[in-house]
Amino acid sequence: MSTDRTHDVGVARLDVDREARTGTPEVVYAEGKTAAQTVACLAGLLDAGAPLAWATRVPAGTVAAVRERWPDAHVDEAARVVWVGTVAPPVGEVLVLTAGTSDDAVAAEVAATLAASGVGCRRVDDVGVAGVHRVLAVAPDLARADAVVVVAGMDGALPSVVAGLTDRLVVAVPTSVGYGAAFEGLAALLTMLTSCAPGVLVVNIDNGFGAGVAAARIVRSAQR
Amino acid sequence: MSTDRTHDVGVARLDVDREARTGTPEVVYAEGKTAAQTVACLAGLLDAGAPLAWATRVPAGTVAAVRERWPDAHVDEAARVVWVGTVAPPVGEVLVLTAGTSDDAVAAEVAATLAASGVGCRRVDDVGVAGVHRVLAVAPDLARADAVVVVAGMDGALPSVVAGLTDRLVVAVPTSVGYGAAFEGLAALLTMLTSCAPGVLVVNIDNGFGAGVAAARIVRSAQR
Amino acid sequence: MSTDRTHDVGVARLDVDREARTGTPEVVYAEGKTAAQTVACLAGLLDAGAPLAWATRVPAGTVAAVRERWPDAHVDEAARVVWVGTVAPPVGEVLVLTAGTSDDAVAAEVAATLAASGVGCRRVDDVGVAGVHRVLAVAPDLARADAVVVVAGMDGALPSVVAGLTDRLVVAVPTSVGYGAAFEGLAALLTMLTSCAPGVLVVNIDNGFGAGVAAARIVRSAQR
Amino acid sequence: MSTDRTHDVGVARLDVDREARTGTPEVVYAEGKTAAQTVACLAGLLDAGAPLAWATRVPAGTVAAVRERWPDAHVDEAARVVWVGTVAPPVGEVLVLTAGTSDDAVAAEVAATLAASGVGCRRVDDVGVAGVHRVLAVAPDLARADAVVVVAGMDGALPSVVAGLTDRLVVAVPTSVGYGAAFEGLAALLTMLTSCAPGVLVVNIDNGFGAGVAAARIVRSAQR
Amino acid sequence: MSTDRTHDVGVARLDVDREARTGTPEVVYAEGKTAAQTVACLAGLLDAGAPLAWATRVPAGTVAAVRERWPDAHVDEAARVVWVGTVAPPVGEVLVLTAGTSDDAVAAEVAATLAASGVGCRRVDDVGVAGVHRVLAVAPDLARADAVVVVAGMDGALPSVVAGLTDRLVVAVPTSVGYGAAFEGLAALLTMLTSCAPGVLVVNIDNGFGAGVAAARIVRSAQR
Amino acid sequence: MSTDRTHDVGVARLDVDREARTGTPEVVYAEGKTAAQTVACLAGLLDAGAPLAWATRVPAGTVAAVRERWPDAHVDEAARVVWVGTVAPPVGEVLVLTAGTSDDAVAAEVAATLAASGVGCRRVDDVGVAGVHRVLAVAPDLARADAVVVVAGMDGALPSVVAGLTDRLVVAVPTSVGYGAAFEGLAALLTMLTSCAPGVLVVNIDNGFGAGVAAARIVRSAQR
Amino acid sequence: MSTDRTHDVGVARLDVDREARTGTPEVVYAEGKTAAQTVACLAGLLDAGAPLAWATRVPAGTVAAVRERWPDAHVDEAARVVWVGTVAPPVGEVLVLTAGTSDDAVAAEVAATLAASGVGCRRVDDVGVAGVHRVLAVAPDLARADAVVVVAGMDGALPSVVAGLTDRLVVAVPTSVGYGAAFEGLAALLTMLTSCAPGVLVVNIDNGFGAGVAAARIVRSAQR
Amino acid sequence: MSTDRTHDVGVARLDVDREARTGTPEVVYAEGKTAAQTVACLAGLLDAGAPLAWATRVPAGTVAAVRERWPDAHVDEAARVVWVGTVAPPVGEVLVLTAGTSDDAVAAEVAATLAASGVGCRRVDDVGVAGVHRVLAVAPDLARADAVVVVAGMDGALPSVVAGLTDRLVVAVPTSVGYGAAFEGLAALLTMLTSCAPGVLVVNIDNGFGAGVAAARIVRSAQR
Repeated sequence: MSTDRTHDVGVARLDVDREARTGTPEVVYAEGKTAAQTVACLAGLLDAGAPLAWATRVPAGTVAAVRERWPDAHVDEAARVVWVGTVAPPVGEVLVLTAGTSDDAVAAEVAATLAASGVGCRRVDDVGVAGVHRVLAVAPDLARADAVVVVAGMDGALPSVVAGLTDRLVVAVPTSVGYGAAFEGLAALLTMLTSCAPGVLVVNIDNGFGAGVAAARIVRSAQR
Repeated sequence: MSTDRTHDVGVARLDVDREARTGTPEVVYAEGKTAAQTVACLAGLLDAGAPLAWATRVPAGTVAAVRERWPDAHVDEAARVVWVGTVAPPVGEVLVLTAGTSDDAVAAEVAATLAASGVGCRRVDDVGVAGVHRVLAVAPDLARADAVVVVAGMDGALPSVVAGLTDRLVVAVPTSVGYGAAFEGLAALLTMLTSCAPGVLVVNIDNGFGAGVAAARIVRSAQR
Repeated sequence: MSTDRTHDVGVARLDVDREARTGTPEVVYAEGKTAAQTVACLAGLLDAGAPLAWATRVPAGTVAAVRERWPDAHVDEAARVVWVGTVAPPVGEVLVLTAGTSDDAVAAEVAATLAASGVGCRRVDDVGVAGVHRVLAVAPDLARADAVVVVAGMDGALPSVVAGLTDRLVVAVPTSVGYGAAFEGLAALLTMLTSCAPGVLVVNIDNGFGAGVAAARIVRSAQR
Repeated sequence: MSTDRTHDVGVARLDVDREARTGTPEVVYAEGKTAAQTVACLAGLLDAGAPLAWATRVPAGTVAAVRERWPDAHVDEAARVVWVGTVAPPVGEVLVLTAGTSDDAVAAEVAATLAASGVGCRRVDDVGVAGVHRVLAVAPDLARADAVVVVAGMDGALPSVVAGLTDRLVVAVPTSVGYGAAFEGLAALLTMLTSCAPGVLVVNIDNGFGAGVAAARIVRSAQR
Repeated sequence: MSTDRTHDVGVARLDVDREARTGTPEVVYAEGKTAAQTVACLAGLLDAGAPLAWATRVPAGTVAAVRERWPDAHVDEAARVVWVGTVAPPVGEVLVLTAGTSDDAVAAEVAATLAASGVGCRRVDDVGVAGVHRVLAVAPDLARADAVVVVAGMDGALPSVVAGLTDRLVVAVPTSVGYGAAFEGLAALLTMLTSCAPGVLVVNIDNGFGAGVAAARIVRSAQR
Repeated sequence: MSTDRTHDVGVARLDVDREARTGTPEVVYAEGKTAAQTVACLAGLLDAGAPLAWATRVPAGTVAAVRERWPDAHVDEAARVVWVGTVAPPVGEVLVLTAGTSDDAVAAEVAATLAASGVGCRRVDDVGVAGVHRVLAVAPDLARADAVVVVAGMDGALPSVVAGLTDRLVVAVPTSVGYGAAFEGLAALLTMLTSCAPGVLVVNIDNGFGAGVAAARIVRSAQR
Repeated sequence: MSTDRTHDVGVARLDVDREARTGTPEVVYAEGKTAAQTVACLAGLLDAGAPLAWATRVPAGTVAAVRERWPDAHVDEAARVVWVGTVAPPVGEVLVLTAGTSDDAVAAEVAATLAASGVGCRRVDDVGVAGVHRVLAVAPDLARADAVVVVAGMDGALPSVVAGLTDRLVVAVPTSVGYGAAFEGLAALLTMLTSCAPGVLVVNIDNGFGAGVAAARIVRSAQR
Repeated sequence: MSTDRTHDVGVARLDVDREARTGTPEVVYAEGKTAAQTVACLAGLLDAGAPLAWATRVPAGTVAAVRERWPDAHVDEAARVVWVGTVAPPVGEVLVLTAGTSDDAVAAEVAATLAASGVGCRRVDDVGVAGVHRVLAVAPDLARADAVVVVAGMDGALPSVVAGLTDRLVVAVPTSVGYGAAFEGLAALLTMLTSCAPGVLVVNIDNGFGAGVAAARIVRSAQR
């Protein structure tokens, strides 16, 4: 069977076989789309037989439109994620760490992505390196995780310390938290790319979705 | 037993328990070190009981010094990697793709890192997206790999296409190949970070070592 | 006859012979102008004998003022383009591709520019490289086009793949779609400038107007 | 017949049908390749039946190796281009302008690319805007060209002036000529991308090859 | 008599002898100051005996406060400049050119600065290089000016052309007009700094005040 | 006694022993936190026994919430700092200089930080280098200070001049005051980092808090 | 008489009437030109009747070739300037200040440019702001100069201080002296563009030639 | 007595009273100076009565010239520092930490600066955060130091961890160690500026001299 079908819903050309090819369905990026466009995309995915249709970076107005169309839609406001349909029960466990409370929105997007992907998630927040004993205290969590996602803004130093403490793959997410020379996440991004600890892999600034998809693949790869 | 010992060899404070903690031993970064410093570090690691001592980005002069001290040292000139000691037999298979022939040195560093880590490697070179049928032709290789490393300079577009074809984790390595607006790898780095395909994780420009370590962790995670 | 006349309308010094010199009339860039200034410029062009007076990046308030002055003005809201007067019937065909639905506003500006220039346009949207079979499916459209305009944000990888499939000139338009390391279109711009496929020519970020003018020149050049 | 064959010559996976698909054969980018690799690529292309095999950015050492293997190879030292085989007689005419004498190497690459592509070329050099009468003096040349390539470093202002004088497509090539705030071509690149004259299309800094390929496509498109 | 007195008005330490030292009085930069702070500074300067007290970048709210305190204050809304007191009759003439209508606000600040400095000003607007005959037409104006100020955004190419036509000093003001790769005036700034025509001197982006002060000094220097 | 305790207040993992380790307690960064989160953090610190709980960059809404919970909270609106509890009487004296009135908010944050740290502060404002006699006039203040903090935006030149006049440590704070090539504080930051006078130490743009903490440490170090 | 003649010398299209139009002859920029090209350009200018032919940024090899052709050529090695022909006796006086000894090469280019332009020059070196009394000591020199050129690298702070002490126009030349965050002159360039003292005009990094031409125009303007 | 004398040695205007004003004498920056210029500056300082004359960033050729002139000159090759004269016996102790062996040259410059300043120094090298137990092990050293200097390249994460462990002032020195996204020290610089731990003060990339001068001031301040 071909895995190359597309489904034209007027506003988009849905890649309905993406899940078969890549393990992740086409997910609607709602930023810059009207509420009507996002609803049409979600409906198109469900029409094409997807068990779960899903959108990220959903503006408040679009959340309302989704709820009106599908009253039982799942909405995660902190993460700005919505989904319609059934989520698989979670397998495995990804440990999600944040450096500070301000990184919460991005970590929430990681967690929602893992949930929608049917992968387990354990969050430990506010373990920045200015109090490094807080990082050392997560050693037991590291030991039982299948993969680690580290979310940090400002100096972005946390992934380097974590990657020196574990043999798990560390997915680093720079956030736009900070001001001045943080340059909206650029400082944290460069820190993570130049980490003195190998085994750190980096996604785009604030890209909790991408980190979640990657971590889910690691878990599934371990289950294969 | 503690995993926090250090071993002072005069020129460095070797982190001899790093392998126990992270699965990867301390590896000597030879760029900017004298030949004598690199030799001292390698000797220190062997003295501390490591079965394999290993250096990356080794300048030509240092290669000679290593060979003089350890005549049976393994030297990979394309990758600028040397090691002394015994490599474990490979498990699993990582697929390493390059966009063009000029990306060879970085891909060689990925391959040498995998070899030293005891992980199998299969390389397919020169499959850039300007002839996209060459990418499509690697589908069978993708299907049997445990992880994929994609090495590309210039526009850095290859990881996006590959990640749309597979459910394996894609580790993307931007290279400094190109000129002008390539800005010594910056263009490829930004392309990979903003990939429209999720599941792409990025390392530093020309960082074949980091990509190899990460891919090895994925393979080992799948074997755990 | 001289092609160097100017027409002073108080707020501007209109280059009324630009169409005779360059094939494209002076077009009013309405961003940063008041509604009154834009109306005065359009009126000045019509007064000077232009069959069609035209503005781009028109704010909502200016649209209203134009409609009040010329009730039968043509308004393309998606493209933020307005024109007054008669458009020539289209000749030739330019294929306009977008990587995603969010690139629509820029593609609409390309299409409106082609229409105002009397050149035919065919749009195929949402053919991003994460589902590369969607790109391959446009081969018949490529074969019959006189020129191709490719509009893409985020990683900006689409023009490289398209240019490897066709002997038509590819005009690449980076868009400001994306976040973080997309740096408001910079990532896509650098990707397109460093494309591994020759035959890709680039315009400014979000510059659908410039891409449309260039594509129209290619079509007219082929008709000369 | 498929246009998707590749030809593996050990050091590269040659895209031997690229000319059939795109009108331009695979051309060897010799920078960063050893002389042996470039020779192997050229030989592979000829073996696969190409009438002309061609390389750009050829280092001096590689020129010698090419001459040794093919004594009648064509070598253009100013352009750093070599080719082996037969060039088609030129059709059409592309006008190539430079802002200053220092832009010569890039203009030479444009001219060599046109010659290898079987397209005519007329060069007029050193017509920078600091003496704008020199630009005005090329009006007759503009009128009879099929396309215009403008090569300029430093302030990169020439394409804006030229594009205001002609209805031909203007392909702008920023060069790395200059110092300080020229930032190795960045200033000229930004100038050209933000040109106040529409109809200017831009290639990478110093990319004479890409400009030549694009201009050849315009000429061929006009001949179709 | 010392020229180093300061005058403390609570919110600021006014440099009341600056005019004696530099020919230009301390001028209040009202952006980022409250209306009360700006009023206090202006009052302080008048109290200290200045014949004219003057502010730039004045927000709308501050304009109202100034008018309430000094009903006969001079307000130039286009330039966002206010002054209280008596302006000297103009001497000499500075020619102020703009590339486009959108550069008007910055040119207005140049003109207001010249007026407050007692220097004559002649403006010719909208003479961008895309219609270079418009630039050539200002030759008579150039010949009789004491100095030239050129205001341009986007590609910032106008000063290079003007400086090739005159022996007057050309003060170039890049503006933040444009989008995308204009990077809020950076493109125009780099163009002007790397101008191929000598005799171009550059001020900060949108700094009409600095250009006006400098041009006034040139005129006064010629009168000395 | 351990200095590594944390105190989990639901929204954060407070580092309650930070003062014992570093001399500075954990201070709440209120930007990007809700009013409820900031109040919870302050309450948590007080519950854990801190004599003083303190927040910086406090939005107006959060100020109201703090006042409602602790009617006698200290609020410094210019500095956007609030605290609850008892401040120690000041020891020593830090001299805080500003280049202009617009730098006031950052200098206020320095002063509030010193106050909360129990360190004395003397401010002298508006002594920018355009009237360098104003800088020379602070010599007596320099001579009696324990440390100097210099706050400056735009060209950021003040710390270089001050550091040439004193043997005190100069902590330089670049501010985002300015426009155009000031690039929101980047120009001042680079100026300070490249100061031709040694003894200048730099903090992040607008980081009055960090400068205050550092200056307090210098004073305390002198008292040790 | 037309001022638009060009003189084609094979390697260049000399703008022989530039001096008549702009007061400055076409000057040969020798960097990136071969010795033969520079000699040909100088000869062409002399053939066309120029009393003085002149080149800047002359490499050592070209100096030798110039001396061979014209044994009495004037060579200024510090400035990398050569000229052939007769220089007019100097009128007026430009004061050239440097911040440090390392700025000497650029200041020498300013001085040579003034000499070739027939304008007087007085240099005072090494008056950086870290010892601000050295700047104050030049007050008498400032008072008798027609214009001031300030050459500074690293923090580039000197022009701001000087411009606060004089009513002369200050031409600021950033140099590439420094390391790290000096970014090869970028820090000094931004400092000068954002100077808190009005009346500072800026040229490109290391552009002593442009500063000299501008200062000469100011002197001549004062003599007109 | 005045502290504003200068001493003109032909090649420089020595600020001979700088030590009296600032506690640090004028130190010769030898990079970009000829050997003769550096020798002349050192001799000039000694002639003016300085007990110690001192140069940094001394090229190899200049070292030889210094040794020829003063056979008993002190030369520190790792630090590229030379001095002539008598160093005061050390007071206090500064702890200098490095993240890796490659940071040695910069740390050596810190140490040499402290020695020349008469301040004690204790170095602990190679304590990067990838093995964070190595950082924790320096706690006793931190407790007895008067100030801490932390030298780190690549991710520059070490100062954040150290500043969370001590109440001493932390002077952070980013180094240019690393490749790719390290951008020659920019990544480490931004990390340090945005440190999540307050009390971190930053100097220019590779500026061991500035860090040493600052640390010496802290020690002296504590001794005052």
